[in-house]
This record gives sequence, C-alpha cells and structure tokens, in this order.
Amino acid sequence: MEKGRILLAVTGFHPQRWRELLSAEREVVLEPDGASDPSISYAVVWKQKPNLLSKLPNLRAIFSIGAGVDHIFADPGLPEVPIVKVVADNLTQYMTEYVVWRVLDHHRQGMLYQAQQKKKTWHEPPQRPAGDISVGIMGLGNLGRAAASVLLSLGFAVNGWSRSEHPMKGVSTYAGDAGLIPFLNATDMLVVLLPLTTQTQGIVNYGLLKELRKRNGLGGSVLINAGRGRLQKDADILRALEDGTLKEASLDVFEVEPLPKTSPLWAHPKVFVTPHAAATSDPVHLVPIMLRQMAAYERGEKLENLVDRKAGY
Amino acid sequence: MEKGRILLAVTGFHPQRWRELLSAEREVVLEPDGASDPSISYAVVWKQKPNLLSKLPNLRAIFSIGAGVDHIFADPGLPEVPIVKVVADNLTQYMTEYVVWRVLDHHRQGMLYQAQQKKKTWHEPPQRPAGDISVGIMGLGNLGRAAASVLLSLGFAVNGWSRSEHPMKGVSTYAGDAGLIPFLNATDMLVVLLPLTTQTQGIVNYGLLKELRKRNGLGGSVLINAGRGRLQKDADILRALEDGTLKEASLDVFEVEPLPKTSPLWAHPKVFVTPHAAATSDPVHLVPIMLRQMAAYERGEKLENLVDRKAGY
Repeated sequence: MEKGRILLAVTGFHPQRWRELLSAEREVVLEPDGASDPSISYAVVWKQKPNLLSKLPNLRAIFSIGAGVDHIFADPGLPEVPIVKVVADNLTQYMTEYVVWRVLDHHRQGMLYQAQQKKKTWHEPPQRPAGDISVGIMGLGNLGRAAASVLLSLGFAVNGWSRSEHPMKGVSTYAGDAGLIPFLNATDMLVVLLPLTTQTQGIVNYGLLKELRKRNGLGGSVLINAGRGRLQKDADILRALEDGTLKEASLDVFEVEPLPKTSPLWAHPKVFVTPHAAATSDPVHLVPIMLRQMAAYERGEKLENLVDRKAGY
Repeated sequence: MEKGRILLAVTGFHPQRWRELLSAEREVVLEPDGASDPSISYAVVWKQKPNLLSKLPNLRAIFSIGAGVDHIFADPGLPEVPIVKVVADNLTQYMTEYVVWRVLDHHRQGMLYQAQQKKKTWHEPPQRPAGDISVGIMGLGNLGRAAASVLLSLGFAVNGWSRSEHPMKGVSTYAGDAGLIPFLNATDMLVVLLPLTTQTQGIVNYGLLKELRKRNGLGGSVLINAGRGRLQKDADILRALEDGTLKEASLDVFEVEPLPKTSPLWAHPKVFVTPHAAATSDPVHLVPIMLRQMAAYERGEKLENLVDRKAGY
C-alpha cells in the first residue's frame, strides 16, 4: 500500500516542528490546504475546525497530539474512523512529575513557608508523615497509575477512582457512581486526571469538594487538577477556598484557557496556577510514535490506544 | 543488669515530649539535674553543655536526637563512650520528601510560574525531560540513597559523591578528593546531605559552586542544602546567585540559625528558605528505637549505627 499523506490541523499549537518531524517519512499538508484531498489518509489534529475531516474522502485514522481527545469530539461532522490517543512515556513522566511536585508542595506546606519567608519568620509548623495523608486520584489510566506508583514510594496512602474497577497493588480503588462518595470521604488531597466526557464535565463542583475528608490537624483538603479545565467549575473552587472547604489548590487547567485576567484565581493566595503545562506534547517524542503506528497500520496491523467512541476517551 | 537511667540534655528542643516517652521504660533525669550521678548510664542529647557528660562516672553511651552528630563533638570534654546516630525510617522519609520536592520545584520552574502568576501571565516556557537533568547528591548514606532512589524513579539522571566509594545501581558514583571535581562537572542540581566534620565544614563555597555544570537551555545550576548550615558559606551562595553561577537555591540550613533577619537570603527572589525543617526528629518515632537499643545493649548485644569517632560521623 502507498504511504498515505497526512493532514496537519492544529489550533493553539505551532505546527512547524510537528510538520518538520512528520515530513521525515510522509508528505504533510498543512490545513487550510488539503480540503477534500483524496490522497490524505491521516489527520494529526488539535481542535480541528468543524466539518474539516468529514470532507476527506479517504481518511483512515485521526491522531490527537495531546493526551485528551475531547477537542476532537467537539466536531459535529466527525467521520467514523479510528481515533488514536497519545500514550507516550514522555507525557506520562511529565504528568507524574507535576502530580508529585504539587502533592509534595501542599504536603510540605510550601505556601506557608513562602508566606513566612516574606515576613522573615523562622518557625517550624508541625509536619505530618506522608502515611497520614490520603491522596485520591480520579482517573486510573496510564497517567494516574504512574503518579500513584511514585506517591506510594514516598509513603503516601493512595486512593483511586475510575469509571470501571481498575485494581492496583497498594492503592484503595473505588469505581463508578456508587464508589464516588466513599472515595471522596477517604481522600485528603484530590488529584484530577479524568478525561473530559459528557459524564465528567463539571464533575469537580462544590458538592463534590464538600465530600472530601476533613480531618483535624490537616487544615483542610486540597485540590489538584491536571486533567481538563471543563471538568471543574472555577467559581465553585473559589467558593470552597473562601469557606474553608478547600485549604489550597493547584490548577493547571481552567474552564476558559488562557485563564482570563479577570479571574480571581490568578491572585488568590491559596491557588497555584500553571498555564496548562503539566504535561506538554513534545513532537520529538510523539511524532515517531505516530509514524510507527501509521506504518504498522499500512502493513495490516492494528492501531493501538484507540479511543472508545462510546465512552468518549 | 539493672536498667540504666537516662540523662536528657537537649538545647533548642522542647524536652517535655522526649522525657515523657523515654520515661515509659526508664527513669529520666533532666539536665541540669543529674550532674555526676553514678546511676546514669545513657545520655540523650542535642548540643549538650560542654564538659557535662565527662562528669558522669558510669556513662555507657550517648544518643543524638537528630540526624547529625557534629553538635556532640563540639564538647571538648566528650567522654570515650559509644555515640549512637539516629537512623529512622521516619527521618529518612521526611528527607526524601524534602529533596524530591525541591528538585521537582526547581526542575518544573516553580519560581518562574509564581512570578508569572503575580503578573497574570499565561506562558509556557520550554520544559526539559527529567532525563536531561543530572541531580548530584553529596553524601550517599541512608538519606542520600533513599532520595536517589525516588529521583531515579522520576527519570532523573543521578550522580552521587561520598568520602569513600558507595556504589548504587543506576547512580554514577564518585568518591574522595579525586572524584569531587568530576562529580561537580557532571552535575546540574547539587543536593547536599553531608555530615558536618572538620573536612566538610565550608565545603559549599564559591569555588565548588563554580564547578557545577553549565549547560545551554537549563539557565544555570541549582543548589539544595538540607545537610548542615556550616557546610556552606552563605555569602558565597549569594555571590554565586548574583553573578549567575547559580540560578536558584533551596536552603534548609544556614551558617547561623535561626537565620538572622539581616541576612539577604531571606528576601532573595531566587532562594527558597525553610527553617531547618527538612527532616524533623519526632520523638514518637525515635524514642522507641533508642529504648530498644538500650535494652539490647544491657542484654549484651552490640549498639547499632555507631558514630565513627575518627571520621566524625
């Protein structure tokens, strides 16, 4: 079979480096060129324009350049071809770094020490051992499991919640609607790594945060969202911080991105903001994986890491 | 053999909790009581008063309540009895948390993101994978090895330096005077966990920091000192930060503690200050270990984790 051409259609990313690296093995057409082009077999996309892909008569598969795929489903004319997720060691490693970094910063009272430093205050507050803290990870896919594994090695108690049961050694796992409240009730620090689907949109709301465990001596629960911004209600997080439901939060994602200058989250003393940078898609690592998959597909092998279209991730 | 009594002589710690817990098994005398008391077999100390211990006619062993023992050697009349170090899972775990937390914060550009947040700037700087960063640990005892192990699991390249060769799987180890410069030349982030001895005092000076690796794209090397304050020259660290030899530093210890309000380190934008809090001695964890050792010693067993008096740690 002939080497299929690639349509590169990325919004919000600079396409140049992706194009260069993909071009090493295949012809690459940069959107808006390539509309209706019958020689295009693959689309490599991030937030592609609606109804763009449906016009490609011979499209064989769609590749997302980021960990999430919700942006692909936003297209009302999405064609019925396989959608391939990014699963890369590199991305997993970045996400693990981010999660462990933020968990340790909240656990070791980074915000308090910074406030003390400003006042030149030499004071050691009580420090609890990691084993006293339950970190609860929502989403136990590749990313969640990798982060859980390092958190366990640091001595934290780890809970995990997912749509269906995902057992993991050393982790107390909960599943589905029935498991959600028990999971939250046993969790001091909530780490959100869920995919964005119609079921999960807005799930991180005030009612959910209210269910997190409140224990004497910990000074309140903590939220870390490195999943998708529309999983959360920004206003509910602010309310929870104001009334003490939440002690602190680390947010890498927001309902609207870039986070508007008018958002009170920017200046909130108990919020640590990063610009959707927890796990960046690096073309140097991801392009070879995509090219390898395309070549295998053309040899008649199966595509790996396919999106379950019904589940939406 | 009769149960020997304990002299508790701690400066800078509140003795009450230590006394309560030690009293569960043995009689405890709180300094200044107990001078020359022949019924005292053990001293549990932190910065004991000079010539206090030499007056105890039947002293059998000295126990330090913190990870370092340099404070014990400051006593010119130190008697020739065994000195027992603290080796506790709890202390090791706290130190690993601190080291991993600070390494990740520098690696993931915590200081930059905080400065951006203040200005409400949504910008993602380039992020290097952990494998591109060499973390060099000075001191490969229990604490250094435990931290190295988690850093390896996060994907960092790890170097280790110690007085004598301490091989460790996955770590590039260097030893002694001959190994020091090669170790520094291969290190981007320096983590200091050395004991304070006559050889190591002031070792973290400008000349040493100058030898750290300078690589394009990393923006300079980083210092993390969680060992002892007198290992470092505070003024040299400031000079290295000013002229770009160092990009950032996390300091838990200082030449003079508490860090004087007049020190420019407090307000330096590239320094993260904690009040000698990386790994706190918790009597709940440490006292049972001490009592177990005393009982074993009286049954004729050997004391464990003895200080090498010649090496000074």
